[in-house]
Amino acid sequence: MNQSSTNIDFKQELMAMGQATREAARKLAVLPGTRKERCLNAMADAIMDQQPSLCQANQQDLAAGRERGLSKAMLDRLELTPERIEEMARGLRVLVGLPDPVGRVDSTWIRPNGIKIRKVRVPIGVIGIIYESRPNVTADAAGLCMKAGNAVFLRGGSESLRSNQAIVSALHQGLRSCELPEAAIQLLPWTDRAAVTAMLKMNQYIDLIIPRGGEGLIRAVVENSTIPVIKHYKGVCHIYVDQAADPAMATAIVENAKCQRPGVCNALESLLIHRDIAASLAPKLYTVLNDKGVELRGDPEFCRLVPQAKPASDDDWGREFLDLILAVRVVESIEQAIEHIAEFGSGHSEAIITENKTAAALFTEHVDAAAVYVNASTRFTDGGQFGMGAEIGISTDRIHARGPMGIDELTTYKYIVTGSGQIRT
Amino acid sequence: MNQSSTNIDFKQELMAMGQATREAARKLAVLPGTRKERCLNAMADAIMDQQPSLCQANQQDLAAGRERGLSKAMLDRLELTPERIEEMARGLRVLVGLPDPVGRVDSTWIRPNGIKIRKVRVPIGVIGIIYESRPNVTADAAGLCMKAGNAVFLRGGSESLRSNQAIVSALHQGLRSCELPEAAIQLLPWTDRAAVTAMLKMNQYIDLIIPRGGEGLIRAVVENSTIPVIKHYKGVCHIYVDQAADPAMATAIVENAKCQRPGVCNALESLLIHRDIAASLAPKLYTVLNDKGVELRGDPEFCRLVPQAKPASDDDWGREFLDLILAVRVVESIEQAIEHIAEFGSGHSEAIITENKTAAALFTEHVDAAAVYVNASTRFTDGGQFGMGAEIGISTDRIHARGPMGIDELTTYKYIVTGSGQIRT
Repeated sequence: MNQSSTNIDFKQELMAMGQATREAARKLAVLPGTRKERCLNAMADAIMDQQPSLCQANQQDLAAGRERGLSKAMLDRLELTPERIEEMARGLRVLVGLPDPVGRVDSTWIRPNGIKIRKVRVPIGVIGIIYESRPNVTADAAGLCMKAGNAVFLRGGSESLRSNQAIVSALHQGLRSCELPEAAIQLLPWTDRAAVTAMLKMNQYIDLIIPRGGEGLIRAVVENSTIPVIKHYKGVCHIYVDQAADPAMATAIVENAKCQRPGVCNALESLLIHRDIAASLAPKLYTVLNDKGVELRGDPEFCRLVPQAKPASDDDWGREFLDLILAVRVVESIEQAIEHIAEFGSGHSEAIITENKTAAALFTEHVDAAAVYVNASTRFTDGGQFGMGAEIGISTDRIHARGPMGIDELTTYKYIVTGSGQIRT
Repeated sequence: MNQSSTNIDFKQELMAMGQATREAARKLAVLPGTRKERCLNAMADAIMDQQPSLCQANQQDLAAGRERGLSKAMLDRLELTPERIEEMARGLRVLVGLPDPVGRVDSTWIRPNGIKIRKVRVPIGVIGIIYESRPNVTADAAGLCMKAGNAVFLRGGSESLRSNQAIVSALHQGLRSCELPEAAIQLLPWTDRAAVTAMLKMNQYIDLIIPRGGEGLIRAVVENSTIPVIKHYKGVCHIYVDQAADPAMATAIVENAKCQRPGVCNALESLLIHRDIAASLAPKLYTVLNDKGVELRGDPEFCRLVPQAKPASDDDWGREFLDLILAVRVVESIEQAIEHIAEFGSGHSEAIITENKTAAALFTEHVDAAAVYVNASTRFTDGGQFGMGAEIGISTDRIHARGPMGIDELTTYKYIVTGSGQIRT
C-alpha cells in the first residue's frame, strides 16, 4: 500500500486496524464451531480460486527478489508453486476436522458455600504473527488462529509482501462469503521497522505475539514488545547414549535424529556417549554417520576412539549446526550428561537411550526441556507427530505453552461461577 | 547493603546472584514434596524465632518512613505487628498441607507408532516478584514459589528494605536448616531504579516476573522487561441486574460487592440495571447503599429515578474508585450491558443477576473476563475463595494464568516421551 505515508498517518491507520481486529475477535470468540469450519473451507476454496492471481503476485515478488540479489535458498522459500498453493488449501481443510477447543470445560468444582466454578476454554483474542519469507505461513497461521476463535494480525517479510497480500485477499473472500468481518485477518501493509515497532506496542489491541523466524528476529521482538511474546528460539538437541543402551537402537536413533532432516530445530546437534559403551559403539556410529556424509567433531576421548573425527572446538558445544555436523563427547556418567545438557541445551528436545529404567527416570526428571525422550528420536517434537493435527510452532518458552503449540495452545480460559445469591462474609 | 556501589559493580553482583538462583532452582525442581514441606515449616519456625530482630528492623524502616513523611496509610502497610509476623508464619504452614503440583501428570496418550507422551507439571524455574510496601509479601511470595519448586528473586519497596532483609534472613535460616541453598530466595539489596531495570533484562536467569502493586509500577515493568510478565492490573467490576433478577438477591449481592471491602480489586465499581426493573429496584438500592455511606453517581435515567444520586461524569465509567462510590447506569437490554462491559471492563470480574437461564448463558458466553458470575458476588474472585489455598495475585492477563493465581499457576509442564526405538520416517 502506501509505504511513503508519514509516521503519523500510519500510526493512525495502524490503530484503526487494531481496533477493527479487536472487534472482529469479539465476533469470532462466540462463533459456533460449525461456522468456523464453514469459513475454513471457504478460505481454502478461495485460495484455489485465486491461484492465478497468487502466482502472478508471487512472480512479482520473485522478480523483485532476484533484482535485490536474494540467495537461491531465499528465492526457493519465497516461491509459490501450484503444489504449495494446494498445500495451503489442504492445510486449511485439515483444520476443519480437528476438535474445537473453545467452550471445552477443563474442570468443574463446587465450593462449600455452593458456588459452582467451571474453568472453560476461550480464545486468546488477537494474535500477532511476525514471520519471514515463506508466504504459506500467512494461510497456515490465519487458519490456526481462526480455528481457535482468534483474530490475527500478520506481519510477513518485505520480500513476500505482494504474495502475502494476494493470499490475504483470498482469505478475505472466504471470510466475506461467510459474512465474517475481513478485519479478522489483518496484514500489516508497511514493511519498515517503525511499523513493526509500533505494532509491538499495541497491547490494547493485540494479546499475544508469536514471532516465527531466526534468533535475531525473535530477540528484536522481545526487546521491543510490550505484548506477551511466545518465543520459538533455536533447538540444540542432545542424545545421551547410556552404558545400558541397546547399541543397534542407539545407532538407528542417532542416525535418524541427525540425518533425516538436519536443517530443523528438532534435529540432533550434540551426542553424549557413556565411557563404558563408547569404545564399542563409537566406530560403528562413525561408519553409519560417515556414510551419510555427517562430519563428526569429537572431544579428545572420542577422537582417540575415532581418529577420523575432527577435534571439536569450544563453541561446538551448544551450537545449532542445522547441517550434517555432529558434536560428540564421551562422558563419565549420566550425571555428567545431565550437567552438559543443563549448560548447553536450549530447552527444546533431549533424549536418553537406555534399557535401564532407573537411568531413564533420573534423566527425564533432571533434564529440563519441552520434550524429554527415552528411546525415541528427538525428531518427534512436532505438532503433527504429537497428534495435535497442526502447529503454529514449537515454543522454547516456559510459560503458557511449551513445545509444539497446536490449536489448544491458542486458547486461554475463563472461570464461569454460578451461584444462588451467595455473598462473601 | 552497598547502595553506593557503582553501576558496574552491581551489575556483576546481580549476574552472580542470578546465576546462583538459577542453580538453586535446579535443585528445588527435583526436591520431593516432603522436603519442601519440611522447609516451609522450618521457614515458619525461623520467622517466629527471629520475631525480635524482625520488629527491630521494622522499627528502623518505620522511623525512616516517618522522617521521609510517608502517609499514615503507607506507614500502616509497612508496619510488622506481632500479629502480622504470626500471620506470615501461619501462611507458610498453610502451604505445607496443600497438594504439590510438581510431577502431576496432566494427560497421557499413545501415538499410533507406539510412543507414549505424558504431559507432566514442572516448576517454572526462577520467579521475579516486584512489590511495594507490605513486607509480608516477602514471606508469602517466597513460600508460594518454594511450594511449587521455584526459586524466587524478590525486589520489595525501598521503604521496607530493612524489614524485608530481616524476613529473608529468617527464611535463609529455614533453608539452611534443611540443607537447601540460600540462593533459592534472593532479595535485591539495591533500591534504585537502575537495579530493577537491570533485573528486568536478566532473561537468562529469571523466567517470569510478577509485579504486585499499582498500575504505574506494573506499566513500568512491562515497558522495561524482556522477561515474560504476568500483569495484575486494576479491577473495574460490573454487576448487571437483568429484568428477570430476584430484587432481594440483587440488592444483597450489590451491597456485598460494593461495601464488604471497597478498596480491593474484586469490589464492585459500576452497576448496570435493566430499564424494566430499574423503577422498582433503584429506590430500594439507594436506601440500602446510602445507609452504608455509598455515594451513587447515576446516568440521567438513574438520576431521574433517584433524585438524590449525583450525575455521573464521563470518566466515572470504567473507573476504579476503590472507595464507597458506585457508578450506576440504566440499560435498554442485556446486549447494551454486554457492550458497556466490553468497553469499560478491565477483564477481572463481571456478574449478572438473573433468574433467566438464557440471559445467564448469553452473558457468560459474551462477557470476556477472568471470572464471570451468575447470581453471586464478584468478591469471590480470590485464590482462597476459589479453593486454591493461597494465591500470589489475580492475573488480568490472558496467557498462562487468568484470575486467581495459586500454586498450580506457578508451574509449567514438560512432555516426557517414552519409546522402544521409534524413529521418524
